[in-house]
Amino acid sequence: MMKIYEYKGFPNPARVRIALGEKNATDTVQFVSVDVPNGEHRTPEFLAKNPSGVVPVLELADGTLIAECTAITEYIDQVFAGPSLCGTTPVQRAKTHMMQRRGEAYLLEPVSAYFHHATPGLGPKLETYQNREWGEKQRGRAVDGMRYFDQVLSEHAYVVGDEFSMADITVFAGLLFSDFVNLEVPRECRALPAWRRKMEQRPSVAGCG
Amino acid sequence: MMKIYEYKGFPNPARVRIALGEKNATDTVQFVSVDVPNGEHRTPEFLAKNPSGVVPVLELADGTLIAECTAITEYIDQVFAGPSLCGTTPVQRAKTHMMQRRGEAYLLEPVSAYFHHATPGLGPKLETYQNREWGEKQRGRAVDGMRYFDQVLSEHAYVVGDEFSMADITVFAGLLFSDFVNLEVPRECRALPAWRRKMEQRPSVAGCG
Repeated sequence: MMKIYEYKGFPNPARVRIALGEKNATDTVQFVSVDVPNGEHRTPEFLAKNPSGVVPVLELADGTLIAECTAITEYIDQVFAGPSLCGTTPVQRAKTHMMQRRGEAYLLEPVSAYFHHATPGLGPKLETYQNREWGEKQRGRAVDGMRYFDQVLSEHAYVVGDEFSMADITVFAGLLFSDFVNLEVPRECRALPAWRRKMEQRPSVAGCG
Repeated sequence: MMKIYEYKGFPNPARVRIALGEKNATDTVQFVSVDVPNGEHRTPEFLAKNPSGVVPVLELADGTLIAECTAITEYIDQVFAGPSLCGTTPVQRAKTHMMQRRGEAYLLEPVSAYFHHATPGLGPKLETYQNREWGEKQRGRAVDGMRYFDQVLSEHAYVVGDEFSMADITVFAGLLFSDFVNLEVPRECRALPAWRRKMEQRPSVAGCG
């Protein structure tokens, strides 16, 4: 049986839970909780599984370890039936990977940097290096990212055109993380909150937390 | 005809040139030079092509724009014959995307952050926000990344096991960028330089600069 090392409710684990939910495959996986608030992700045992020291990590039945949400989602997309998460044609795949990366670089990563550098983050024991100015700068980049995706979603139903994809999951996780750090979507953004309400009605998303 | 907006000799454009070279497809693409040293990548015209404000960008014959090297490489891999760059089985694809992301996050991105924040970078007109402490911190992360890939390459012929992949291209581009900023591979690393010499003998790599 596949295992997923994760911490329930955190944004990156939520991405993999949503992907599994879209494929109706949640029950085929064993979830293993890693005690991130108490630093279990920094232990030698966990770093041997993922040198990045972050959850989630997928472990296949033969012990193969797959980290990074894009890589895990690619795997899930290919081994389970159901709607495509990564795209089926070369153009669709390329657009999906582009927007997936933007979801990370424009929103999830800046929100994370704000959390870890300009707020108490995971607390003084775990936040051993903080650069407050950098964190504040990334806060601004995250808001720019919200405006960018608002614009995208004012023109299309989903982040990649007319079809749901892993990029929607990534942007949604970015908004989950934004909630957690009290970073609000600018009021003039209308399309992004409307899309979010639509996302929250998907069974995969409703069940991810 | 496809166009690639780029700046020859820069590390991310080199990634796409190597990918095209592996597929023997360099001649099927029109390269359009963007004058990055003079800030052409910050103009409204270019930002309309890629809001990230970076090269390379792929433009298909119908005007579709694909940014982000992973997305461009996925496209190239699927539309041209030749050796697989992204992997063919679900496990191989997942491992390749994992190592591709690590090549960026452990090496290319920290080297880039060091360049833009802790050196003069592209000069005072273009480097409008610098955080020197952050840049210096990223320098250390880049060296950690070199040690990580040295370890990986001491156990396997390529970054993803026995087969060449886009992750090799990404790590190679990380070393190109490291040269440019005078960031040396630690002397005790033997596998990484040996792999690099092997990479430099590939026609795609020899012709990328």
